[in-house]
Amino acid sequence: MSDNLLSNINNPTDLRQLDEAQLPQVAQELRNFIIDIVSVKEGHLGASLGVVELTIALHYVFDTPNDLLIWDVGHQAYGHKILTGRKEIFHTNRQLGGISGFPKRSESIYDAFGVGHSSTSISAALGMAIASNLKGDYDKQHIAVIGDSSIASGMAFEGLNHAGVTDANLLVILNDNAIGIDPSVGALKKYLTAVKEGKNPRQNNMIKSLNFDYSGPINGHDIFAVIKELKRLQKVKGPKFLHIITTKGKGLQQAEENQVKYHAPGKFDAITGEIHIKSDENLPPKYQDVFGLTVLDLAKKNKKIIGITPAMPSGSSLKFMMDALPKRAFDVGIAEQHAVTLAAGMATQGMVVFCNIYSTFLQRAYDQVIHDVALQNLPVIFCLDRAGLVGEDGATHHGVFDLAYLRCIPNIIIYSPLNEIGLQNILYTAQLGLNNPISIRYPRGRGVVADWQSKNFGKYDKIEIGKAICLQKGSKVAVLSNGTIGNNVTLAIAKMQHPETIAHYDFSFVKPLDESLLPVIFAKFETVITIEDGVIKGGFGGAIVEFACSHNYTSKIIILGIPDEFIEQGTVDELQQYCKIDVKSLEILFSNY
Amino acid sequence: MSDNLLSNINNPTDLRQLDEAQLPQVAQELRNFIIDIVSVKEGHLGASLGVVELTIALHYVFDTPNDLLIWDVGHQAYGHKILTGRKEIFHTNRQLGGISGFPKRSESIYDAFGVGHSSTSISAALGMAIASNLKGDYDKQHIAVIGDSSIASGMAFEGLNHAGVTDANLLVILNDNAIGIDPSVGALKKYLTAVKEGKNPRQNNMIKSLNFDYSGPINGHDIFAVIKELKRLQKVKGPKFLHIITTKGKGLQQAEENQVKYHAPGKFDAITGEIHIKSDENLPPKYQDVFGLTVLDLAKKNKKIIGITPAMPSGSSLKFMMDALPKRAFDVGIAEQHAVTLAAGMATQGMVVFCNIYSTFLQRAYDQVIHDVALQNLPVIFCLDRAGLVGEDGATHHGVFDLAYLRCIPNIIIYSPLNEIGLQNILYTAQLGLNNPISIRYPRGRGVVADWQSKNFGKYDKIEIGKAICLQKGSKVAVLSNGTIGNNVTLAIAKMQHPETIAHYDFSFVKPLDESLLPVIFAKFETVITIEDGVIKGGFGGAIVEFACSHNYTSKIIILGIPDEFIEQGTVDELQQYCKIDVKSLEILFSNY
Repeated sequence: MSDNLLSNINNPTDLRQLDEAQLPQVAQELRNFIIDIVSVKEGHLGASLGVVELTIALHYVFDTPNDLLIWDVGHQAYGHKILTGRKEIFHTNRQLGGISGFPKRSESIYDAFGVGHSSTSISAALGMAIASNLKGDYDKQHIAVIGDSSIASGMAFEGLNHAGVTDANLLVILNDNAIGIDPSVGALKKYLTAVKEGKNPRQNNMIKSLNFDYSGPINGHDIFAVIKELKRLQKVKGPKFLHIITTKGKGLQQAEENQVKYHAPGKFDAITGEIHIKSDENLPPKYQDVFGLTVLDLAKKNKKIIGITPAMPSGSSLKFMMDALPKRAFDVGIAEQHAVTLAAGMATQGMVVFCNIYSTFLQRAYDQVIHDVALQNLPVIFCLDRAGLVGEDGATHHGVFDLAYLRCIPNIIIYSPLNEIGLQNILYTAQLGLNNPISIRYPRGRGVVADWQSKNFGKYDKIEIGKAICLQKGSKVAVLSNGTIGNNVTLAIAKMQHPETIAHYDFSFVKPLDESLLPVIFAKFETVITIEDGVIKGGFGGAIVEFACSHNYTSKIIILGIPDEFIEQGTVDELQQYCKIDVKSLEILFSNY
Repeated sequence: MSDNLLSNINNPTDLRQLDEAQLPQVAQELRNFIIDIVSVKEGHLGASLGVVELTIALHYVFDTPNDLLIWDVGHQAYGHKILTGRKEIFHTNRQLGGISGFPKRSESIYDAFGVGHSSTSISAALGMAIASNLKGDYDKQHIAVIGDSSIASGMAFEGLNHAGVTDANLLVILNDNAIGIDPSVGALKKYLTAVKEGKNPRQNNMIKSLNFDYSGPINGHDIFAVIKELKRLQKVKGPKFLHIITTKGKGLQQAEENQVKYHAPGKFDAITGEIHIKSDENLPPKYQDVFGLTVLDLAKKNKKIIGITPAMPSGSSLKFMMDALPKRAFDVGIAEQHAVTLAAGMATQGMVVFCNIYSTFLQRAYDQVIHDVALQNLPVIFCLDRAGLVGEDGATHHGVFDLAYLRCIPNIIIYSPLNEIGLQNILYTAQLGLNNPISIRYPRGRGVVADWQSKNFGKYDKIEIGKAICLQKGSKVAVLSNGTIGNNVTLAIAKMQHPETIAHYDFSFVKPLDESLLPVIFAKFETVITIEDGVIKGGFGGAIVEFACSHNYTSKIIILGIPDEFIEQGTVDELQQYCKIDVKSLEILFSNY
């Protein structure tokens, strides 16, 4: 038995030359390949290990790229990438200039649709299938592979509801492993578990109610069973639904046993699975933990506090509160729209709701923020995690639009803390009772105050809404920063030969602006530089120029931030350099004055 | 038998004094009251007529306002308003300073949650129910009344999916009348129809799969049956679901027979039901018809064209294409998220997709616009109907945010035609094949070119992307207008004593801006006025000041548009006056120069 089948597979055509009997070995080799590279290069591990057999079976049975295959979310598409011409560059995964961690149309003809956010696959595949019918291509297959967490999101239901009344050649494959990033939740999950356990008669299946040809559940690791069923479904016209059961992390024992941890484990030992623990002694805390610890601390004292996360209890650290106060902290699944309006409903009853949503995912609930929260002026506290450039997750996940898309909404307060202390204090201030909703945005990763937990945690100061702070006086130029990017400004000034030329103001509030300080600044400085970790168009800098314009100030204003293009993956440092908001670029800019 | 029971009912407490046997008479009187007022004051008719019995039964059985009642969308809440203290002011419905056409928290303690956009009721009621549990109030009832069109929207599914795993005292009442504004669509509708017809055994009910206590379907016009079932459900703890069947327009024969037309029929004869037809001879066409007729005309010649509407075939006039080319025009139901990603999927296959969504509802699909369309730079053509101030529908429905929330997205083209000719020409231009997605926004109602259909329809000119046009030369001030509000500028200038002082430029493109013309304007004019039918913060005016700032132009810039507050209902004229963008206000402003 050869042990290097994979080395001869450069694309699905090569794969299709093999005998079916050889495929389990390909699966073994593909798994090892993924483990070997992800163990040193990092990335999303568990999801791709879980669909190794499915990936091989799909490319073996279907005529990709002619048949169109969409991986929902895309965490699980590493095997797909490796089998479709990207084996040799897979080690560049998620790096600057390398391949994306998600399927991406511009990267490969085999990536039929760019993904990243969940639950888009059914709608996209249906659109393709309808287009094929209109073009008279009635044999083309259109396949959406979607997990059980993602299919519970409303958008997926909308896709199923439409597909069920079409004659489109759509195959929806439910990859049911009972977990997203965290374990799946909700009534549908409960139902699917009952189906798996044989407690629901198939013929009265919920999916059948939506007019799909349902089959399954089958074992997704039995590659022969999967191939057999795919071949059968290949000949069935119209909307079809295959329910397969898989294990996330399949093939690496530790990954199977600790599915949350091994979703994206960082570096680990490819043989033992042991995760290489980075020492975090003396490192500043993660903003996520500042949020999680502080909200729990506040919730212990204020019984009105409720926490909500749409499917990110671990990522957001709301898990601390969920573990300690399970009746008052909720994981609602991938359901951002519901999360926001649920929070609004709670707020009408006087509850103090911390609704934690990643900046990029709040885009999913934009209407609910406007229509259900801001219009009724309900004091929901939005905590926008992973705001700004997020690094390796790339274009689909950067949280760079929120300042612009929230600023145009009446009633809302917009705050970005400069550091951990600002974050804990605004959380404290918000739960004292505001008259408005508030957005609190902070980035992924660690802060800047190494001894925060020992020195600051639990010692709260109330923040005055709308007040900016002078961090450093200066003679020539005023730099107005919003949020944690202000720490780059501080570092840049410290490196200058003549730091006394630069005044630095922390404008944590984008809305309301500090309209008493701004006239003082514009009166004194001929040059004002704004900086934010968000898009330049319509963001914080936009607010400052609009203010200057409406008051006839004529100082020169330079707006720094994310340019008007989608930013790809890379380390945060690399991407800040690209956007010229890194310490070095700022130092050079400031030194011109 | 008294014929004035209603006149003695000022609130639900009065209602509860009556014998159950008197309630059919109350229903009759309430229906007549609604018909009498809506026939002369206009408004949404059919939905409220359909739930007269349910409305009475709910307030009769439940302890409102202590028990919390949410009407999804709210078109059906006229009876509720009349029974809850607003009978005497009901004639001010939808007028400036009058009561809102939708339930609204600030208007009445009986309006538990403000509504307008669909499918929010389950999430909001669940939030309230969870809050009640946390407060130890285990008997309080939380009721969401939702239609069969609204429950098919993804957000409603998210709410059900969460509610099903809680012990919340939530009662979801499905008001199943097989129609929203237009007839309901989708697989769920098909399923519900089968249930109604007795074809699905109850015990294997889809809703039961989501862990709800399901009952029904029952006849929603049998007030005694409804009361009996509500009384039973009142004692059932946890999530409950009642399926009732009603007829939209019930009690007015013409409204029952023409449910689409009588959704909001305008003025009509209260006895015969006959709609008072307004003569539209010599009136300019509705922008909706310009869209509908033009897209159909183009689609006949360009086989790649597809049309999509989420539940607004009549409102958008996509119905013209749906009737003529049914395989290429789709009503996908209240599913904006799905609509946008479906369009993206189609666009990957080379189709030219006109995705028509009201501006206010595109907020529901904001992430899909960013993540599925703009990031992949797919040339989907978004037609944003009812952009700007919409008038009587009020704060929930004004389409005033789109310029701001779209402008920050890379790749997208943003265009607002000045008039019917601009709209037809941009539709023509877009289907020739653009390299980017485009947003085309236009208002509700009639344009300004009375003979458009006879003179212009079908005669297309290609528009140069990004080009602004000088409509009138002037000496002192440059007015830069975006979209149809520019017609106010034209009229205002015409009324001036010295019109020669005002130059007027049509900046139909907010993105890309005409960066070759702007330097000329800034070089010549010391004062530049921008005007848009959208929010001032971050919109078109924001784009102009950002441009001026980045090029160091120091002209004084005045930004006109919608101020930073939610605008209530009124006629468009009244609301333009409030925002100072009406002809008279502009004339006064311009005359200062």
